[in-house]
Amino acid sequence: MTDIAARIDAANAETVRRIMSAEPVLIDVVAAREALPHLADRTILHAGPPIGWDRMCGPMRGAVMGIAVFEGWAADLAEAEAMAARGAFKFEPNHHHDCVGPMTGMTTGGQMLLVVENRSFGNRAYCAINEGLGKVMRFGGNDGEVLDRIRWLTSSLGPALGKALREMGGIPLKPLIARGLGMGDEMHQRNLACSSLLLRLLAPALARTAADTNELAKNLAFIAANDQFFLNVAMAMGKAMSDPARGIAGSSVVTAMCRNGTDFGIRVSGTGDQWFTAPVEMPVGMYFPGFTEADANPDMGDSAIVETIGLGGFAMGAAPAVVGFIGAGNASEAAVFTRAMSEICIAENSEWTIPAMDYCGVPTGIDIRLVVETGLMPTINTGIAHKKPGVGQVGAGIVRAPRGCFEAALGAFADKMGVG
Amino acid sequence: MTDIAARIDAANAETVRRIMSAEPVLIDVVAAREALPHLADRTILHAGPPIGWDRMCGPMRGAVMGIAVFEGWAADLAEAEAMAARGAFKFEPNHHHDCVGPMTGMTTGGQMLLVVENRSFGNRAYCAINEGLGKVMRFGGNDGEVLDRIRWLTSSLGPALGKALREMGGIPLKPLIARGLGMGDEMHQRNLACSSLLLRLLAPALARTAADTNELAKNLAFIAANDQFFLNVAMAMGKAMSDPARGIAGSSVVTAMCRNGTDFGIRVSGTGDQWFTAPVEMPVGMYFPGFTEADANPDMGDSAIVETIGLGGFAMGAAPAVVGFIGAGNASEAAVFTRAMSEICIAENSEWTIPAMDYCGVPTGIDIRLVVETGLMPTINTGIAHKKPGVGQVGAGIVRAPRGCFEAALGAFADKMGVG
Repeated sequence: MTDIAARIDAANAETVRRIMSAEPVLIDVVAAREALPHLADRTILHAGPPIGWDRMCGPMRGAVMGIAVFEGWAADLAEAEAMAARGAFKFEPNHHHDCVGPMTGMTTGGQMLLVVENRSFGNRAYCAINEGLGKVMRFGGNDGEVLDRIRWLTSSLGPALGKALREMGGIPLKPLIARGLGMGDEMHQRNLACSSLLLRLLAPALARTAADTNELAKNLAFIAANDQFFLNVAMAMGKAMSDPARGIAGSSVVTAMCRNGTDFGIRVSGTGDQWFTAPVEMPVGMYFPGFTEADANPDMGDSAIVETIGLGGFAMGAAPAVVGFIGAGNASEAAVFTRAMSEICIAENSEWTIPAMDYCGVPTGIDIRLVVETGLMPTINTGIAHKKPGVGQVGAGIVRAPRGCFEAALGAFADKMGVG
Repeated sequence: MTDIAARIDAANAETVRRIMSAEPVLIDVVAAREALPHLADRTILHAGPPIGWDRMCGPMRGAVMGIAVFEGWAADLAEAEAMAARGAFKFEPNHHHDCVGPMTGMTTGGQMLLVVENRSFGNRAYCAINEGLGKVMRFGGNDGEVLDRIRWLTSSLGPALGKALREMGGIPLKPLIARGLGMGDEMHQRNLACSSLLLRLLAPALARTAADTNELAKNLAFIAANDQFFLNVAMAMGKAMSDPARGIAGSSVVTAMCRNGTDFGIRVSGTGDQWFTAPVEMPVGMYFPGFTEADANPDMGDSAIVETIGLGGFAMGAAPAVVGFIGAGNASEAAVFTRAMSEICIAENSEWTIPAMDYCGVPTGIDIRLVVETGLMPTINTGIAHKKPGVGQVGAGIVRAPRGCFEAALGAFADKMGVG
């Protein structure tokens, strides 16, 4: 037993070493078809663990219908719905293709994707460009306005960002996050600092590579209008950092957490790419004026990848202003959340520190044994979508990863270690 | 005596009402000659209370020599020095002409000035554009590189900023500061958030009004390279907000604090525009590698106007990361400084709050009676200049406003109230 514990400790140490020694760099924005040439036709990648059309929640169905029209696979939403119902589309998780996506997380060949390269390990991860607030596809929006915006991201902003990033040789993300943690961001529900810092880094390169000032002004204004623009970059970074930590024999550390609006899924390093799922929970939080919990869709999106690497709810101590926004209590008690997450993590990231907590590092490396033992479920700061397609965000709150995932994972892990 | 106390309370309430009801907007960048047409030829405005060439410290003399060459009044630095010594220039405080300037604070007709309008009261205040870090005129720099940079600010960045600001109808600064306080800035030694937010607001307008993308890229890159770019905006804002609070009979509230490198000066509302001075102190703080206190010039600059309105050292609780930078102790104890300053202020600004302190407002309205009574001197977060001209910044630290200013002011105030 002691021998096994020592083996697990060594494997876990290697897992967090890989996570924390990552060097994620935002290097490009490319066409998905180019980044993922192996994607079969009519494939739609979605957030969370695997799911079919029959079990998809309202906003995800709405997004599927919208993206099928965007791709030209259906003439209108009704046709897209009928096609989905008869199995005309192939659904696969983003996570199976080096991708992540917020909320519904639609990824298809016709979109442009942010590219984050992990220079320590050579792997890449992808995420679509953040669409802004309001009626957007990640919240199940699918009307003409939503599709036109994605067309514009594909034809204008995406290529311009790609050109600027290539010209400047990419943007190292680790120091950017370090600055953001000193500026009140936790990089899940608050990306105000990192979005502003990113624009500040990009603006001169966008100008140097711009064909004309009109389009440049529109591109700059689109980024500048969105405090959450950075979220999708943070997510691709999370995926790029956690992927090399997958599949380390004997490791009980979580390498992914994600939700598809129906199921919550986790992956654990020592059990490889197997998903352990449980029904998603309903976030507890604050609703925008005019909305209540009755309007809310349960927890959704790949964005919990940021908690997987120590940000979001785990870095709450860095972001007192987010505590009230998500309805989690007094701002002055932000550090309480980070301290609690330290109890289920095996390390602190010395490169990502929280000034107000005298530079303690963000808790990193969720150990499923500690989660089950303490009963402290990972805290995820999340947006709340309306349960009907097309309405958009109705609030923000905290959701706990369901205990069932961790119990199932621990059972499988114990079996694998021969102690089941 | 009770009657007098009530009169003072009422006057003080009006003073802080004026400060806090200000609506400062960054509206333009204009030629100083246009903003200050009454300036006599060969006039040099400087930081701090009045001072002549004979008593000026090294960096200020260096800056005077440099700005005289920039203006074409002298062919070289040696001629400028000789002219200064024989009284060829007229020296006046920035504060006497609606201006402020950091460190040496040179303001002359040939420069471009940021314009902040206080829309509640109609007054305007001016400050030169921040030159960036390293060898710069505000730290006494005066060689060709320094003068060329000021020429470029005058010919390129200044006009571009002015055009962009006019096109967008100005930038309201109160909400910007409110955001910055939630992002770790105290707007004196840390302007990282506000500099980034300002660029984010300006970038689209700069692009819309740019003549060509090359110059635009250079302008954007210059702003983006400087975490302290916003400081000069904050200073003009401080001047614009505090000026309408001057000259209220019976008020014991401070309306300006500034230093010329030799003397520290304060103005108190009830005693009008009289300066109360005492020798400046030496900041206590952290020195950049290779420098010690032996290299340091004593406290200098008009930048303490930000403390006068509740920012800088008074808002330390918002900026845990600045505490270590200025060598003031543990980051987690940032709030201690703000709480101490609350003891010498008569109000809290409910529009400028500190999330980590559960949204308490920054302490506003320094009462000279409370300063003398408690012995708590105003805390100022400051840059430290090398005592020789042209070296630049050698560190950052905390300096206390000298007790002598407040005692002298309280004496004069008591005389004026008939209780001397």
